[in-house]
Amino acid sequence: MISKHDIRFIRSLHEKEGRLESGMFAAGGTKITLDLIRNGHKPEMLAATEEWAGKHAASIAQSGNTLKIASRNDIARCSTLKTPQDVISVWRIPVQPDLQEIGHGLVLALDEVQDPGNVGTIIRIAAWFGIRCILCSPACADVYNPKVIQASMGSFFRVSVIYGDLGESIRTLKGKGFRVAAAVMEGAPLDTFQPEGAQIIIMGNESKGVSELLLGMAETSVTIPSFTPGGSGVESLNVATAAAVICYETCKKIKHES
Amino acid sequence: MISKHDIRFIRSLHEKEGRLESGMFAAGGTKITLDLIRNGHKPEMLAATEEWAGKHAASIAQSGNTLKIASRNDIARCSTLKTPQDVISVWRIPVQPDLQEIGHGLVLALDEVQDPGNVGTIIRIAAWFGIRCILCSPACADVYNPKVIQASMGSFFRVSVIYGDLGESIRTLKGKGFRVAAAVMEGAPLDTFQPEGAQIIIMGNESKGVSELLLGMAETSVTIPSFTPGGSGVESLNVATAAAVICYETCKKIKHES
Repeated sequence: MISKHDIRFIRSLHEKEGRLESGMFAAGGTKITLDLIRNGHKPEMLAATEEWAGKHAASIAQSGNTLKIASRNDIARCSTLKTPQDVISVWRIPVQPDLQEIGHGLVLALDEVQDPGNVGTIIRIAAWFGIRCILCSPACADVYNPKVIQASMGSFFRVSVIYGDLGESIRTLKGKGFRVAAAVMEGAPLDTFQPEGAQIIIMGNESKGVSELLLGMAETSVTIPSFTPGGSGVESLNVATAAAVICYETCKKIKHES
Repeated sequence: MISKHDIRFIRSLHEKEGRLESGMFAAGGTKITLDLIRNGHKPEMLAATEEWAGKHAASIAQSGNTLKIASRNDIARCSTLKTPQDVISVWRIPVQPDLQEIGHGLVLALDEVQDPGNVGTIIRIAAWFGIRCILCSPACADVYNPKVIQASMGSFFRVSVIYGDLGESIRTLKGKGFRVAAAVMEGAPLDTFQPEGAQIIIMGNESKGVSELLLGMAETSVTIPSFTPGGSGVESLNVATAAAVICYETCKKIKHES
């Protein structure tokens, strides 16, 4: 049975401070919870309704039996989601991998991408294209923010999201042979871009774009063409939309050349 | 000065019934309002704070002086947005163009895309790539829903969004020489897809995908490859993300061949 203390604890995980203090995060909903269990992860706590527990007994057994029965009301009190859920689960935050362990391929670097929906969508896109690593500047939305987890549709466990000074991280990967491109408004057309087998692409803040400092570290800049003579008159694409197109084109070329 | 009646009227435009009855819609915020005026559109009403009106006198004059001064509180009462705005504007819904007038190029068909954020993002993507027409089934989110307008970032005026029975609309365009492809989970890889100069691509509902009936009308089906041997294990991409990649690849090919 869930206690008041448990509810307070899960609620504390909605804030970054609470997650830092405990080293844990919460994920709401059946899809994400089962997906994590199915992929071999063990929750620290599963708060679920009796009905949910009855339906998912096998998964609960597989997860190591950390079940606490809760009413729907209690789960709503644990959750930031508007739609009521039957389960909310608590997980240990995985250890951030060392940059030295990052293999070749495409790496995305997010420079102050602040909207949690954008960060979550980009993680889902990266997971789709088999991208293993996303570098995030400290001002990016936190990967374990409930809205990021929601938008990533549980794919945050397939991608290493590494927070830290982007300039330093990029310098380290350059030392390992990575090349750097920045996504900008007036760069070389993406369809003519020739990525390397070890390629970083920097995506910028929603309104300010990529910072001057990081632009200075890039050998190339790329832009998504509108394929419209004279331009389409539209100011920009959303950063997650742009990331989707850039990952598609870049992964296609890296794959075809390897 | 804005009246209680004006506020009630603008609020009525948040619901489809109110928009249908009056033939008008409301758009909140400076960016969208100025963008529409700059593109030669005339608002039926501009409700703005005195400060906003002082800053944008030239635009107000250009717009035909339908200004009503309102307090920030009054504007908040007119708006569905959480962030307080300094202006909200009312516009006449443009007449839906006839399908017979649709020129060649890429046309997107949305089959029950219900999330307003997805429909708005797809409109913004279409506008970026110079796509002139989006067909929507009646169950799609309404283009003049405040959340769709917000997600489209004001680009809804650059694209004709035509609601109606998708089967019928597609049949009409087929009669004009259009070919039809459907975006599905297990189709031909998008990078090998050869679009025609007059090409419809059907994007499906967020959970159900493209309906059987419409699948039957498509000559081809396309899938965004993950470029990952054995697949990346991720179930799907968000429909707006998928639309971005599909529009990019298709417009690139149509353009390069024309």
